[in-house]
Amino acid sequence: MILRLSRGGPRRAAFYAILLLFVAAVLFRICILRLTENDPAMVSPSKFVVGPDHKIYEYNRDMPLIFIGGVPRSGTTLMRAMLDAHPDVRCGQETRVIPRLLQLRFHWLKSEKESLRLEEAGITKSVLDSAIAAFTLEIIVKHGEPAPRLCNKDPLTIKMGTYVVDLFPNAKFIFMVRDGRATAHSIITRKVTITGFDLTSYRQCLKKWNSAVEAMNNQCKELGPNRCLKVPYEQLVLHPRKWMEKVLKFLDIPWNESVLHHHEFINNGVSLSKVERSSDQVIKPVNLEALTKWVGSIPDDVVKDMAEIAPMLSVLGYDPYANPPNYGRPDDVVATNTKDIQKHKGDWEKKAKEMFNNRWEEGGGGDTALDKEPSDNPNNTT
Amino acid sequence: MILRLSRGGPRRAAFYAILLLFVAAVLFRICILRLTENDPAMVSPSKFVVGPDHKIYEYNRDMPLIFIGGVPRSGTTLMRAMLDAHPDVRCGQETRVIPRLLQLRFHWLKSEKESLRLEEAGITKSVLDSAIAAFTLEIIVKHGEPAPRLCNKDPLTIKMGTYVVDLFPNAKFIFMVRDGRATAHSIITRKVTITGFDLTSYRQCLKKWNSAVEAMNNQCKELGPNRCLKVPYEQLVLHPRKWMEKVLKFLDIPWNESVLHHHEFINNGVSLSKVERSSDQVIKPVNLEALTKWVGSIPDDVVKDMAEIAPMLSVLGYDPYANPPNYGRPDDVVATNTKDIQKHKGDWEKKAKEMFNNRWEEGGGGDTALDKEPSDNPNNTT
Repeated sequence: MILRLSRGGPRRAAFYAILLLFVAAVLFRICILRLTENDPAMVSPSKFVVGPDHKIYEYNRDMPLIFIGGVPRSGTTLMRAMLDAHPDVRCGQETRVIPRLLQLRFHWLKSEKESLRLEEAGITKSVLDSAIAAFTLEIIVKHGEPAPRLCNKDPLTIKMGTYVVDLFPNAKFIFMVRDGRATAHSIITRKVTITGFDLTSYRQCLKKWNSAVEAMNNQCKELGPNRCLKVPYEQLVLHPRKWMEKVLKFLDIPWNESVLHHHEFINNGVSLSKVERSSDQVIKPVNLEALTKWVGSIPDDVVKDMAEIAPMLSVLGYDPYANPPNYGRPDDVVATNTKDIQKHKGDWEKKAKEMFNNRWEEGGGGDTALDKEPSDNPNNTT
Repeated sequence: MILRLSRGGPRRAAFYAILLLFVAAVLFRICILRLTENDPAMVSPSKFVVGPDHKIYEYNRDMPLIFIGGVPRSGTTLMRAMLDAHPDVRCGQETRVIPRLLQLRFHWLKSEKESLRLEEAGITKSVLDSAIAAFTLEIIVKHGEPAPRLCNKDPLTIKMGTYVVDLFPNAKFIFMVRDGRATAHSIITRKVTITGFDLTSYRQCLKKWNSAVEAMNNQCKELGPNRCLKVPYEQLVLHPRKWMEKVLKFLDIPWNESVLHHHEFINNGVSLSKVERSSDQVIKPVNLEALTKWVGSIPDDVVKDMAEIAPMLSVLGYDPYANPPNYGRPDDVVATNTKDIQKHKGDWEKKAKEMFNNRWEEGGGGDTALDKEPSDNPNNTT
């Protein structure tokens, strides 16, 4: 197109410009009013963040957010690290504050008197939801780099999965499940303080695991197969390619080989917290180390009563009488990784110590006041 | 201007339109990037609500929000009702949830271990602030009608006044103070459950009043005279015109006679909650009924030790040895209102009963679980 300015051009240009601006203003107003036809007082337009690439990322409640959940020590960190390795996805560290705010809301609404007070104050369900969604979005969007697909890994959020979908209608959940015996063993031997779990008793921990995973499983069922994908930790580490293909397909994310090499992206796409207990494990490639460590550690009387203590084992497909059950044969690459890691055990330990500076040992079980928040209890009735 | 379409007109118009759109897009991008020069990853553009007048109201953290605070039963509801009567202002009912979220944040950051965990998770002060501000804004903006000046009356928010100003740099506070003896009498006789207050003991209630008002007074001092205006309840009811002139001037709001007639705007500008304890009092015009009711109700031993039990009385200008002190002579209009209300006492009682349907009596002191939230404790150390 060639630009030819006739004498009348500039004046006419100014006229068209003014006309266009006027039309744009009218359209904007109409558009805003349209949006609010059903709900006369509210519009929630998008907000933005700008990436280090100077790209503008819009964010709003209609985003297809990804939530990774499960009982703590069930592979949620591995899953989020593998997704974090994907160039289009950012999960990041556990935010801790999101499940707490969600829990607080349940606490408020559980009291009939308080519900009435909020209703009388104009704090309707829709007002409270928009405030909780705004808080949640700010935290998810801003606690790490922007990315086309944002993801959150606070393991307990899935306890309130159906409510999260009220807030974010296009959200999807990855539900990590794991043999409860391995989870209990990990909690106890790594001294992971979780509200409600008694670290001196396998029996008690397995009971707590059972009720927590049951509640989460019910939420996953209620969400349905289009919104919640159950991923067994054992199958993920035995067959990472097959399962990550399944996960990415479920999430509508194109395949990328990086997800099978998450350990190469540590602190370069996969941000780790120096004080999250699983950080030292995800610096290694996918391996089988954690599958059967628990065998032989559980007291005989607990082993004997296993089917009764933890009926969810059978429900989730884990034979309660096999010690260990046959989880399956690993892919070659995983078997090789595992041998390689065992051969260089000392090097890996040194690397973990350098990276995380022994923070867990220092911290010990000391200041656990906040581990006792009701919202951090995977068994809290919601 | 006359529109003359030459033959080349339409094509040229299309060209200018495209050019203009392109320029607008570039400008938008530059503007976004400019905004983020200092803080590369974040922009918090405004959001909007649309009023019933179809006017669009923008909202963001730079709004000049108004916060009304004070120990419960100190005239905060009267103040917000008088401001609500102003056509440019909307306060509305106590939201209850805002001080709770603010308190939760203090609770998190009080623990060194938890602060480290949040920091390591990318939840920096600025990320947490933007999430808490987003929640607070959604609640303030959406729990009532839009208005040019929005206001919040959760009495305890002022305990965290300096933090609120971090969130909303243009916020201003109205700090209601009242003779602690009248406040204690009101809490006890009206059976207002407030966490930490023992409704059977004047001595204990006055001590609690003292420490709560001391903390709030310190916040108000730290905020400084441009951000926090102290309003003695007694002076407000004795001289409503003088004090509301002062208040509106402090808030940069033009004078409007409506603020002296708040009772004429009940449920028509002044929304009341059927379950807030002060609702039945603010349906009346400003009057002197509540000034000296306490005289004669406080046990002698407490009266004798008053200066020691509640040293803040003297600090705030209330003579601890006068029962009652001389609060001053009322304006004529207030004296007339008061006589008139006393003459038609029965009518007012009937009106209150009709409006609020005896909800308090029914509720009694029953389900007070949520009254015991730590965040609802005016004496919680923050």
